[in-house]
Amino acid sequence: MIKKLIFLTVLLSTQFQLLKAQMPKLERIEPMNWWVGFKDQSLQLLVRGNRIADKTVTLYYPGVKLVSVQKVENPNYLFVNLKISSATKSGTFPISFTKKGEKVIKYTYELKSRTNHTEGVTNKDLIYLIMPDRFSNGDISNDKISGMKDMTLNRDSMYYRHGGDIQGIINNLPYLQELGVTTLWLNPVLENDEYKTSYHGYANTENYQIDRRFGTNALYKKLVDECHKRGMKMIKDLVHNHIGDQHFLFLDPPAKDWFHQWPKYTGTTYKDQVLFDPYAANSDKKLMSDGWFDHHMPDVNQQNPLVKKYIMQSHIWWIEYAGLDGFRLDTYAYNDLKFMAEWAKAITREFPKFTYFGETWVHGTANQVFFTEGSTVNQHFDTGLQGVTDFQTYFAINETLNGKFGWTEGVNKLYTVLASDYQYKDPTRNVLFLDNHDTDRFLSKVGEDFDKYKSGIILLLSLRGIPEMYYGTEILMKNLANPDGKVRDDFPGGWTGDKTNKFITSGRNEKENEAFNFVKKLANYRKNNSVLQTGKLMQYVPENGIYVYFRYTNEKTVMVVMNTNEQAEVLETSRFSERIGKYQTLLNIITDQKIPIDNIKLPAKTSYIFELQ
Amino acid sequence: MIKKLIFLTVLLSTQFQLLKAQMPKLERIEPMNWWVGFKDQSLQLLVRGNRIADKTVTLYYPGVKLVSVQKVENPNYLFVNLKISSATKSGTFPISFTKKGEKVIKYTYELKSRTNHTEGVTNKDLIYLIMPDRFSNGDISNDKISGMKDMTLNRDSMYYRHGGDIQGIINNLPYLQELGVTTLWLNPVLENDEYKTSYHGYANTENYQIDRRFGTNALYKKLVDECHKRGMKMIKDLVHNHIGDQHFLFLDPPAKDWFHQWPKYTGTTYKDQVLFDPYAANSDKKLMSDGWFDHHMPDVNQQNPLVKKYIMQSHIWWIEYAGLDGFRLDTYAYNDLKFMAEWAKAITREFPKFTYFGETWVHGTANQVFFTEGSTVNQHFDTGLQGVTDFQTYFAINETLNGKFGWTEGVNKLYTVLASDYQYKDPTRNVLFLDNHDTDRFLSKVGEDFDKYKSGIILLLSLRGIPEMYYGTEILMKNLANPDGKVRDDFPGGWTGDKTNKFITSGRNEKENEAFNFVKKLANYRKNNSVLQTGKLMQYVPENGIYVYFRYTNEKTVMVVMNTNEQAEVLETSRFSERIGKYQTLLNIITDQKIPIDNIKLPAKTSYIFELQ
Repeated sequence: MIKKLIFLTVLLSTQFQLLKAQMPKLERIEPMNWWVGFKDQSLQLLVRGNRIADKTVTLYYPGVKLVSVQKVENPNYLFVNLKISSATKSGTFPISFTKKGEKVIKYTYELKSRTNHTEGVTNKDLIYLIMPDRFSNGDISNDKISGMKDMTLNRDSMYYRHGGDIQGIINNLPYLQELGVTTLWLNPVLENDEYKTSYHGYANTENYQIDRRFGTNALYKKLVDECHKRGMKMIKDLVHNHIGDQHFLFLDPPAKDWFHQWPKYTGTTYKDQVLFDPYAANSDKKLMSDGWFDHHMPDVNQQNPLVKKYIMQSHIWWIEYAGLDGFRLDTYAYNDLKFMAEWAKAITREFPKFTYFGETWVHGTANQVFFTEGSTVNQHFDTGLQGVTDFQTYFAINETLNGKFGWTEGVNKLYTVLASDYQYKDPTRNVLFLDNHDTDRFLSKVGEDFDKYKSGIILLLSLRGIPEMYYGTEILMKNLANPDGKVRDDFPGGWTGDKTNKFITSGRNEKENEAFNFVKKLANYRKNNSVLQTGKLMQYVPENGIYVYFRYTNEKTVMVVMNTNEQAEVLETSRFSERIGKYQTLLNIITDQKIPIDNIKLPAKTSYIFELQ
Repeated sequence: MIKKLIFLTVLLSTQFQLLKAQMPKLERIEPMNWWVGFKDQSLQLLVRGNRIADKTVTLYYPGVKLVSVQKVENPNYLFVNLKISSATKSGTFPISFTKKGEKVIKYTYELKSRTNHTEGVTNKDLIYLIMPDRFSNGDISNDKISGMKDMTLNRDSMYYRHGGDIQGIINNLPYLQELGVTTLWLNPVLENDEYKTSYHGYANTENYQIDRRFGTNALYKKLVDECHKRGMKMIKDLVHNHIGDQHFLFLDPPAKDWFHQWPKYTGTTYKDQVLFDPYAANSDKKLMSDGWFDHHMPDVNQQNPLVKKYIMQSHIWWIEYAGLDGFRLDTYAYNDLKFMAEWAKAITREFPKFTYFGETWVHGTANQVFFTEGSTVNQHFDTGLQGVTDFQTYFAINETLNGKFGWTEGVNKLYTVLASDYQYKDPTRNVLFLDNHDTDRFLSKVGEDFDKYKSGIILLLSLRGIPEMYYGTEILMKNLANPDGKVRDDFPGGWTGDKTNKFITSGRNEKENEAFNFVKKLANYRKNNSVLQTGKLMQYVPENGIYVYFRYTNEKTVMVVMNTNEQAEVLETSRFSERIGKYQTLLNIITDQKIPIDNIKLPAKTSYIFELQ
């Protein structure tokens, strides 16, 4: 045990020596460039280089003031504070680092003009979630990058890299557009130069660089541009809470308090309750927030002002650089929520319509509401979080389709969760989903029952909120999260030489085409009819296992009818007169068939979505 | 079908004729008397008599102004509006009803001086819930009252009357005081002159009269006085939502809109969700609030100003008349909540420390929080409801003792429900309970497991809130609510001639005495130690099926340790240093044994409650 520890210590110190030895006199400045015209006029440059703290910093540019230069524990870092006045013009200027008797080092800094005026991602959109390593390999030349730590490339293992990349996504934008997708959310694409399981992206080792196995920064920007050309949008997946343990900031940290340090490895308890529990022990709170999310994911100290500024600037940088429309915030509950509130203000200040929603994998409405904008009880501040990945509807949809109808069970669970929306400032900003990269795939969850699958798709695309569909759901991809991780399987046809290509009609079997066309029909109806986007919702108390709700505007009314029973039923509709009014006919949105409105025949476990005419 | 309907109509109209024929010229004035010194100076007298509307009303008393006389559809009623100025002195005066050519009718009205200055019922108290017909028969002369409609008297049936009464409760106050009880809550004791199942009391046929089978108004007042002499308090159980269908107000209503009328019998849906659901249909809202609670319980129209005033005055009358300390509000969710908000203001205005809590038999924290004071989201007004019968902790305690420990299951359910207290303005005003007259008895719920029973008693008496114990729990009474209603069994020994008398030590078997002494020891510790009343609560994240929480003040700390596992465990206590501090010894509050604080041996499914020393 002790022997092993010594060995590790030697290994680590050798590694540090190596790192220091290789470090150039000026390794990097971050952000690499900035923009003029932000409301926040302060800019803090992280400068890293071999004993850079010994140098003197000088610069001159009209409108730019060098406010201060901050040194930290580690002489390889300097933090340069600038003020960029509102009158500053775009352009470039040199920043000089000098030391008596040494050659001057110059860095050309650019201030660009702002171009991002995004309208954000809203309930008008349909998000498609892609795990980039597993969707499509558009460029085999970047599958392995010499010098990177994870050199696995084996599509037989779910934990190795498969080679999917940004070019693969660009290639398939027409497919996604046809399906009715309006927004992409990619799992994180920043560099993850970790030794193991680097493919998932949640342990970044750079904050300003796309992983080279996915492509370049420029290619990522091109993907966003291509999306915009097609009227589509881009959501970037962010991790505030932790980084990868191979990040330069962890291997050679500016200061000890850049991270939460523990005498020995200490994981978080994953217990969100301590954050709002009026009775929580301080030790439990500390474990939840400061314990590490995983062994290779050091927990960032978000109370350190330098850390805070570094994180916030990197995110603003990406919005402007790539032209983003939204952020998904990973492991939201594990962050310092006061910092997250500051962060939200900083983002919204510069981009008023920019969208961000947090991952809140918690159980219960109270637990989820706590994190959202407007919920200030017992926390004395507002997180400003616009929306959440709505795990409560996710759990409830599962119960609806798989549970047995009862007073609180079956679809009564979904009914109650939606009724509890009264607690949100704006529930329509929550992101609805049937599955994601961490859960079982939806089709497997419903026991591969095709009727239940269709019911799920109808719920996803017609309930309130912003729907998110996980890649491959439309072609009936299945499998479980545990034990084999096969929820992250490759999209068939994404790799040259794949036996089948499910991106094209002829590559899909009959049932897959039926599913694809079902999703496509409804997603495009949703895309073209505001009633399913921003229309009001009215739900009726479920009776006898049958659930009925409406989306409606002044112009149009859509009715969803769900029979959760194991047997066929007939639904008499007079109870719904408040919404049916003078309408007489039901147009089945999927099949285009028309039926009279009075008695609706409902096969077992089946849902219909109708437009009223 | 039609024949039956005609028969019924004939029967009903005959009954009405009879009623009218028997009605004296002045049958009643309600309230029968009033008090001087209320902040609300208005008083509205309901006057009922044969064609009383034809009369002219006159009165004279210094400070009392006859504001108006209101006629309604039914000539047998008059509503007389008075203003009683703040300077008015107590005393009596005649009210005259005159009609040309008829004899003058006089009623002597009394204005008394106020005497109730209650401090209310708080978390310092322990409530004992009694079903009066089933506790003790102290006066056999009132078991059957000639002329009343339910003449059953049969202790073999749970649906017939058993003969328990107020005198029986008075007789047993020493027993309750010894047990540690500080407050009584009786199921409703107003007259229920119904044909069937009149014993439960929730279908009153008078608002100002105690059911004669329980005793007189004066005897009820005597019970309250006897309680007060012993430092005990009284909670009256109120039903705002409905009355019994044999109530004079239903048999001969002042106006049609005194009740919610339906073309045919229409019951409530019992779906509280529609009250807060932002998506609810108006028809569903109406069904929930205006549908009848049961066939024999007409739903009162709480938007009618006369109805509102009649209800509010009757409650204020009882507080002053009997010297009450609190109200329990039956079927709270079924009322018009705006009226309930008005009602709460009216009560609190006159009695600032008076306690009232509502029955909220709902599922989920969001559903329950909605009804409470301070929760104004989506309703634009505050119900002012101080507390609720806390069904969420009730469900959670059941899951804790009977469920299997899991991420959200077992004691994690209770842990999460308590953590969700952040949503209440003041959760310490909620009423905790293990069972009540509507649920299975607690001992049966835990499968008659004595260790689980003790764990439940510890939770009840040491968690936050006002504990309520259902009569007989302390002597191990058991049985289920369905199908046989035996949760309402008689307290053995409450009737002369009972085979056993469990009010006395010698009448209880060994296990019953152990239970009684367990409750008595802890209830009296609670009564004498503010730490379990108003002390702060700190709970720790449950680990490995073990749950630990503390109640603490500056002076004293109590630790509760619960092992929910099926096997014995040893608990290492260093994790709790925040509360343990320099304490070194654990005093078992039940057994008085002392043990060192470090490693606590926990048998399977067992809880301990310790004072730290």
